[in-house]
Amino acid sequence: MAWEELIDKHAGTLAQAIAAVRERTFYAHWAEIPSGKIYGEDANEKGRHRFESLLNKPFRELLQVHDGAWVGREESPYGFPLGIEYPQISVATAVERAQRAQQQWRRLSARQRAAILIEALEQTAAEFFPLAYATMHTTGQGFVMAFQASGPHAFDRALEAVATGVVALEYFAGEALWRKSFGKGEIVLHKRFVTVPKGLGAVIGCSTFPLWNALPGVFANLVTGNGCLWKPHPLAMLPVALFVARFQQVLDALGVDPHVLVFLPCTPEEPLTWEVVEHPAVRIVDYTGGPAFGAELERRLGGKVVFTEKAGVNSVLVHSVSNLGAALENLAFSLCLYSGQMCTAPQNIIAPEEGIETPEGKLSVAAFAERLVSAIDALVQNPKAGPPTLGAIQSERTLQRVRQAEALGLPVLRGSASLSHPDFPHARTATPVLLEARWQEDRAFYGREWFGPIAFLVRAPDAEQALAEMVHLVQTVGALVTAVYTTDEHFKERAIASITEAGAPVALNFVGPVWINQSAAYSDFHGAGVNAAGSASFTDLAYVSARFGIVHVREIVRAE
Amino acid sequence: MAWEELIDKHAGTLAQAIAAVRERTFYAHWAEIPSGKIYGEDANEKGRHRFESLLNKPFRELLQVHDGAWVGREESPYGFPLGIEYPQISVATAVERAQRAQQQWRRLSARQRAAILIEALEQTAAEFFPLAYATMHTTGQGFVMAFQASGPHAFDRALEAVATGVVALEYFAGEALWRKSFGKGEIVLHKRFVTVPKGLGAVIGCSTFPLWNALPGVFANLVTGNGCLWKPHPLAMLPVALFVARFQQVLDALGVDPHVLVFLPCTPEEPLTWEVVEHPAVRIVDYTGGPAFGAELERRLGGKVVFTEKAGVNSVLVHSVSNLGAALENLAFSLCLYSGQMCTAPQNIIAPEEGIETPEGKLSVAAFAERLVSAIDALVQNPKAGPPTLGAIQSERTLQRVRQAEALGLPVLRGSASLSHPDFPHARTATPVLLEARWQEDRAFYGREWFGPIAFLVRAPDAEQALAEMVHLVQTVGALVTAVYTTDEHFKERAIASITEAGAPVALNFVGPVWINQSAAYSDFHGAGVNAAGSASFTDLAYVSARFGIVHVREIVRAE
Repeated sequence: MAWEELIDKHAGTLAQAIAAVRERTFYAHWAEIPSGKIYGEDANEKGRHRFESLLNKPFRELLQVHDGAWVGREESPYGFPLGIEYPQISVATAVERAQRAQQQWRRLSARQRAAILIEALEQTAAEFFPLAYATMHTTGQGFVMAFQASGPHAFDRALEAVATGVVALEYFAGEALWRKSFGKGEIVLHKRFVTVPKGLGAVIGCSTFPLWNALPGVFANLVTGNGCLWKPHPLAMLPVALFVARFQQVLDALGVDPHVLVFLPCTPEEPLTWEVVEHPAVRIVDYTGGPAFGAELERRLGGKVVFTEKAGVNSVLVHSVSNLGAALENLAFSLCLYSGQMCTAPQNIIAPEEGIETPEGKLSVAAFAERLVSAIDALVQNPKAGPPTLGAIQSERTLQRVRQAEALGLPVLRGSASLSHPDFPHARTATPVLLEARWQEDRAFYGREWFGPIAFLVRAPDAEQALAEMVHLVQTVGALVTAVYTTDEHFKERAIASITEAGAPVALNFVGPVWINQSAAYSDFHGAGVNAAGSASFTDLAYVSARFGIVHVREIVRAE
Repeated sequence: MAWEELIDKHAGTLAQAIAAVRERTFYAHWAEIPSGKIYGEDANEKGRHRFESLLNKPFRELLQVHDGAWVGREESPYGFPLGIEYPQISVATAVERAQRAQQQWRRLSARQRAAILIEALEQTAAEFFPLAYATMHTTGQGFVMAFQASGPHAFDRALEAVATGVVALEYFAGEALWRKSFGKGEIVLHKRFVTVPKGLGAVIGCSTFPLWNALPGVFANLVTGNGCLWKPHPLAMLPVALFVARFQQVLDALGVDPHVLVFLPCTPEEPLTWEVVEHPAVRIVDYTGGPAFGAELERRLGGKVVFTEKAGVNSVLVHSVSNLGAALENLAFSLCLYSGQMCTAPQNIIAPEEGIETPEGKLSVAAFAERLVSAIDALVQNPKAGPPTLGAIQSERTLQRVRQAEALGLPVLRGSASLSHPDFPHARTATPVLLEARWQEDRAFYGREWFGPIAFLVRAPDAEQALAEMVHLVQTVGALVTAVYTTDEHFKERAIASITEAGAPVALNFVGPVWINQSAAYSDFHGAGVNAAGSASFTDLAYVSARFGIVHVREIVRAE
């Protein structure tokens, strides 16, 4: 296909995405419901078969050089080994091949690269169901979440990065005639402005959202002309391998060297991260993962462009509510969703000692806690909704963390238990634990991240101090999201001002089918990049424009 | 004055600057000629008197806290001590006051901040002539250059940063109604998007262009809502003090805490740089200066936003010319201008062994060198043009470097000598030295920066290898500019492709009153940020958008 045709084919999609990015209104290029009516009645079944057909054998679909062993030791958190091995490639080879592929890639125009990337997304969307099963059985997510998080939602985040990248690449004129008078003469220069990629990008994936957290960095690198090495977490490689394989096939069919995006399989013993990010050819690093490692990475990579999403400590302030039931239901869902294994899950629930205003009068904190526990229990014990909402626990270490939390000696408002899964009797599961922490005295506990189904209820002396404590947490340890429930307009505006000033987003009075855990592509900037939770923001201008520079060519047309 | 009025007052200027930035066409808000017709017949005389009135006493015009000694030991490179002392302020106090001032500053809108900054520039422009003398007698620049570089050209770069900052701050919608259907219902969120500054910025100035290289960072910090500490070079403080004093007076008159921009005087013994940039409250660092220190700074400040302009090694390739005299004159001027003390001055002149094509036939490299030396001599020995073009040598170390170069043992095509200055008999001066370096063998010499009036002529086996060597230098040590003289369209396009790909700008066939040393505000991106010469680019989207993030506030409007 000629480039012009491909550009035309996707021009509408790109224009819609660019408009949505700018206006921040609702937009979704891919439907988020894994429904037969949308994706074909047999799509789910075929996807499951495809996933099962990949198990217990070498993965042979990549179009990239293989110069090592076969590696892979993934296990489903639902209780079985995947038995898949991936073809190893050395970092040196990956760098060399990606650099070579980049020679062609960087010379394409922004619109050509964007069209190729959208074509690749469109074709790879045929893998939504296999990707969903692959994600479910590496991360422990429930099926619907796995479908959305590694399918439509992740792909929309990728398209958003492409659109924002095109905006940044095209913002300034590509050429200009520059006329300047001097004395009686005029000098005329013809100027061209060439966008130049920074080098190779490396994207370091995490174990819980292998595509959603990685695709923005991958696509931001690619649209701006960089080659990209994608190193997944060693226990969440299959979704990445599936994505990259399909992506490489699309590129290859278009006559583009598929090594522009290289998949780097690894093992828990040799996770490769430092080897990749410290390679001198790698100039851009995107990292999602733990705060300690992320901070070390930022420190050690001075001089490179580094975008991190380290998790933060997300707090919910409950001051007053207009509909207690709806608020509790929303909050309970947020606490249960994927068993709190989201960097955006709420961890601390802060309420004023004096109680919470409701239309039915003041509710004591103890009564509120009781109602919250009931709401969690209702969801957990719902045989249809509970297991798929909670999913499974990705890592044994998260289970250990639940036990550590329960052993802190804090009053246990709700204990964690395993939850038997109808389809997977050996699934690793844990329902949320809710502890009561003492105001400030226990800041050593609630003031750090407890990744997993672990939450703290904190009684503040009053609402103002509750807010001050939230702001303090944002300032010291960072947060990816916060939530405030209040019916008081003045308090609401004060909360907005002080929390946003500290650099964290705010969700106000969330009820119904929208949760603080989720950020919407094209509208919500995920991770603002201005607090300790990380430096990345999906997707603002900094996130794309840091990946390239603009070099000018000035030529004398006339000087007389 | 009400903010609305101020915004209206400068709306036209801002709109013009934003349009110029986008279109990259010629634009200048301030006239570059220090002419009495433009600036008032007595402006020069009054400016000189003001400068002289500042000598040999404490500088008392700043509106900032003073909590230390009086410091200052500047000497004019034209041969006399300035005898000015500045009120010291500790880094701790500066940080604390700037943070306090920032509380108000960050809450102003982008347009309010832009209007205040433009008002400050307009009023501070009344100091163009004093700034020119202050710059001349700290840097050694000739008067006209000092006027332009610390006056109109620097101010236009500042306005450019303001304009680009407003573009980035306003690119995305500030609020949106977000509607999403689910089942039979609809959820409606009201979203606000708040821009949040990263923290405090620190701008570390250099000794040769105390305003031009610093103002983009200062104004990019300020327009994006950050407070800013400005630490000048200890031997080039007066221009900065003058600028900051006037700036603070304007802010104060508008009811804005002047500590939003703090001047940090220092001494050669206690240059303060590390203390300032490593302060935890400082999140953004702009640095102009030597490559070794700059690289160390990038390494050590991992996790902060760091923009550097370390000097590079700028090469000129002479392949073929259509007008030899004009080319030689242009090149000679570039070599002489401010005695090569510009990070954009040419250092290496590379020509093919076989000679240079001219309309009069092939010119041997030896003959070319002879003609170039004559062109330099003609300019140097021109009693009217020579001394003001060469100016004085800012630092004794640059003079030493000239002597070191001459002692390398390379053939001396043109020796350096002092040049007596009609007005300043004790001026520290040096005319350009031109050495012949052996192709590749002497790469240890011409492959590093020799800041000052030092240039190398290098004979390449042929034009292709000359080009490859230029590209190699850009890739390894970086370059802020390159120049190519060629009449061959194919060679020209190859040169453009390979040099821009390596990340350096190209000036083609420059003749007349435009030199590779100069980059035009609103049009040329100074320092592309994609080669070893530095990470900053005046002014692209990355340069402004890295200084802030966007935090969203989501509020339920309807969920049913």
